[in-house]
Amino acid sequence: MKKTEPAPASALPRGFRFAALNCGLRKPPALDLGLILADQPAAAGGVFTQNRVQAAPVLLCKRHLQAAAGRIRAVIVNSRNANCSTGPAGMQAAEATAAAVAAVAGCDPEQVMVCSTGVIGLPLKVRKILRAIPALASQAQRSAAEFAAFTCAIMTTDTRPKWASARCRIGSHSVRLLGCAKGAGMIHPNMATMLAYVVTDAAIRPSVLQRAVSRVARTTFNAITVDGDTSTNDTLLVLANGLAGNRVIAGPGRAYRAFFDALHKVCHELALQIVSDGEGAKRVIEIEVRGAPTGRQAERVARTIASSPLVKTMFAGGDPNWGRVLAAAGRSGVKFDPNRADVYLGGLLACHQGTAHPFSEKLAHKRMMRDLVPVLVDLHAGKGRARVWTCDFTSDYVHINASYRT
Amino acid sequence: MKKTEPAPASALPRGFRFAALNCGLRKPPALDLGLILADQPAAAGGVFTQNRVQAAPVLLCKRHLQAAAGRIRAVIVNSRNANCSTGPAGMQAAEATAAAVAAVAGCDPEQVMVCSTGVIGLPLKVRKILRAIPALASQAQRSAAEFAAFTCAIMTTDTRPKWASARCRIGSHSVRLLGCAKGAGMIHPNMATMLAYVVTDAAIRPSVLQRAVSRVARTTFNAITVDGDTSTNDTLLVLANGLAGNRVIAGPGRAYRAFFDALHKVCHELALQIVSDGEGAKRVIEIEVRGAPTGRQAERVARTIASSPLVKTMFAGGDPNWGRVLAAAGRSGVKFDPNRADVYLGGLLACHQGTAHPFSEKLAHKRMMRDLVPVLVDLHAGKGRARVWTCDFTSDYVHINASYRT
Repeated sequence: MKKTEPAPASALPRGFRFAALNCGLRKPPALDLGLILADQPAAAGGVFTQNRVQAAPVLLCKRHLQAAAGRIRAVIVNSRNANCSTGPAGMQAAEATAAAVAAVAGCDPEQVMVCSTGVIGLPLKVRKILRAIPALASQAQRSAAEFAAFTCAIMTTDTRPKWASARCRIGSHSVRLLGCAKGAGMIHPNMATMLAYVVTDAAIRPSVLQRAVSRVARTTFNAITVDGDTSTNDTLLVLANGLAGNRVIAGPGRAYRAFFDALHKVCHELALQIVSDGEGAKRVIEIEVRGAPTGRQAERVARTIASSPLVKTMFAGGDPNWGRVLAAAGRSGVKFDPNRADVYLGGLLACHQGTAHPFSEKLAHKRMMRDLVPVLVDLHAGKGRARVWTCDFTSDYVHINASYRT
Repeated sequence: MKKTEPAPASALPRGFRFAALNCGLRKPPALDLGLILADQPAAAGGVFTQNRVQAAPVLLCKRHLQAAAGRIRAVIVNSRNANCSTGPAGMQAAEATAAAVAAVAGCDPEQVMVCSTGVIGLPLKVRKILRAIPALASQAQRSAAEFAAFTCAIMTTDTRPKWASARCRIGSHSVRLLGCAKGAGMIHPNMATMLAYVVTDAAIRPSVLQRAVSRVARTTFNAITVDGDTSTNDTLLVLANGLAGNRVIAGPGRAYRAFFDALHKVCHELALQIVSDGEGAKRVIEIEVRGAPTGRQAERVARTIASSPLVKTMFAGGDPNWGRVLAAAGRSGVKFDPNRADVYLGGLLACHQGTAHPFSEKLAHKRMMRDLVPVLVDLHAGKGRARVWTCDFTSDYVHINASYRT
């Protein structure tokens, strides 16, 4: 799940340029401002935080997406400051940023998406951003190096940049998708989680793209949790500029499925990279629930287990204490008979029909210390299934968050 | 919130005896088995876990309470093993325990309440308990020392025993209430939390007592959270034997209110003792929400804030990062306008109408390092109010839970 190599130039879709620099929000030389420029107006789909408290740039993005979903030209992102709970000044800052980018890109402000991530409630020093935009735009290139810089500029408590790519064939045309994401804390599956961007040269109708983005978010970014906290800034944006030359994907069918599968692959990889880089995390836990009355209920059980601090700390120590998994399922609000439930840890049956099943604790411990640990709960109460991903809960999470700012 | 002295003999209600010993579930000399004997049949009220997975002793207690709510004679509690997810053998063990206590107490098995706390899914070595019951019963005394021993026998990861007492006058009669509790992890306000017992010599009709217990649980044990996990064994039991000689409390009125207030005081104190002894906790955080559309919605917002790992870790480090409080309120599902919300940390206004309000970070930090830190969120969206209590989230929580068994 860790990408140690930067994305190769061959993964870059046609017609997108990237740039990143330090504008002074962070101590130089740390990158804190990133830009994506679409040479051609791009179709865009997006999913945003469901939190009642939404940052100014999120409100702006939603407005711009409604006004110009078919002709987006730029995405600008700053880290260090979330521009959230910053009042009217915060919205003015986001609008001024969009206007400044529009000026250098030669487009309308509503063709610009603005994103921020970092501390909540701190006034944004927007002048630093505005001053840096001309230099940022002039250095934008379709190059692997600038893409790599962009992936670094959007990081906060991340320990490494995150990217994923895919290709698919649509008709006789080869379509490329390249995505990146940031996020390590304040992550919970109430929506598209954290900041994630995918650019592609596919040709696709904006409404069809939006449908694909919403659907793909549910089983990827919305199926991960680090700490149960939902950010105020979460954003997933997908831009498609059509330069691959395929016939425009206008509805369901073979071309849509090929594109959807490729988009799913990119988002799934990015989501797992986020979990595996969860604050303080040492491993990824895959929670699969089967046999729930419905799919939604399976999801609810899986999320309750994935959010349980007792379950997550158990994986930090590799302790095969299956009772905590069953107890978390029990408080999920979903009806099932505990006397029929089975629990597998790392592939080993540990609980059969609600009671202990003999297994090698030593072997279970060993499997629980791997990078990816599968947990399977079968409720035997129906056909509903779901999978979610979380990480172990270590004391490093506490160290990181007890003094994030001070 | 910490009781450093054991309960004095003067706090003991008339007609209840206590005992505790080591029966071999834990390494001697650690106490692991406790008994309360009521010399007279006592009225009983109880509240139990809402978890779908319920331990055998919880199922047995609910059955016995229905059958004999007006004439309970004994409560027996073992620690180290929760007797949960133990199949038919688990229920047989609980029934055998009730029968053995009934034999020495000279009553019916259904007049005996059985409780267990500890690891889930481990077969209970019930023979050790059955063998110890005669000695346990014969050593039972109405003494401060035996009560203190009982409070120790029910502990698991608790670092100290927890007790509270109150008196009230009903007519010309002085009524005593004495309570104790255990619980430090797997604590969340979905029900009466953890094991808690209150004995009183008040005379009160069982149905009226049950009403008082259910009501009192809502604003005490149900208003605390340590880690969001709901146990499979949670139990609050109140026994009232009538030996104070007051006219039987048979419904609402002055006598009911006097008794209710005293019961509330005992349960509130016990609940705060549980939070302050939360696994790894250094301080108690009181979350008060005002101005919600309804009381229920205020509760929902308060609980979401109290359960947020980002909020709880922030208090471990004393970091006045109010944005995390507002963001947690925002994801609670309750509708409010973030631009009207105020947040106070340790009595200092830190966020006014949704944006930063100038305050001394140094002073806020100092106040956040105290034993009890008040947090107030005013949504200005109605008249609903609620208070809940939680503790800070430290790396010690992780250390305790990463290797609970191994």
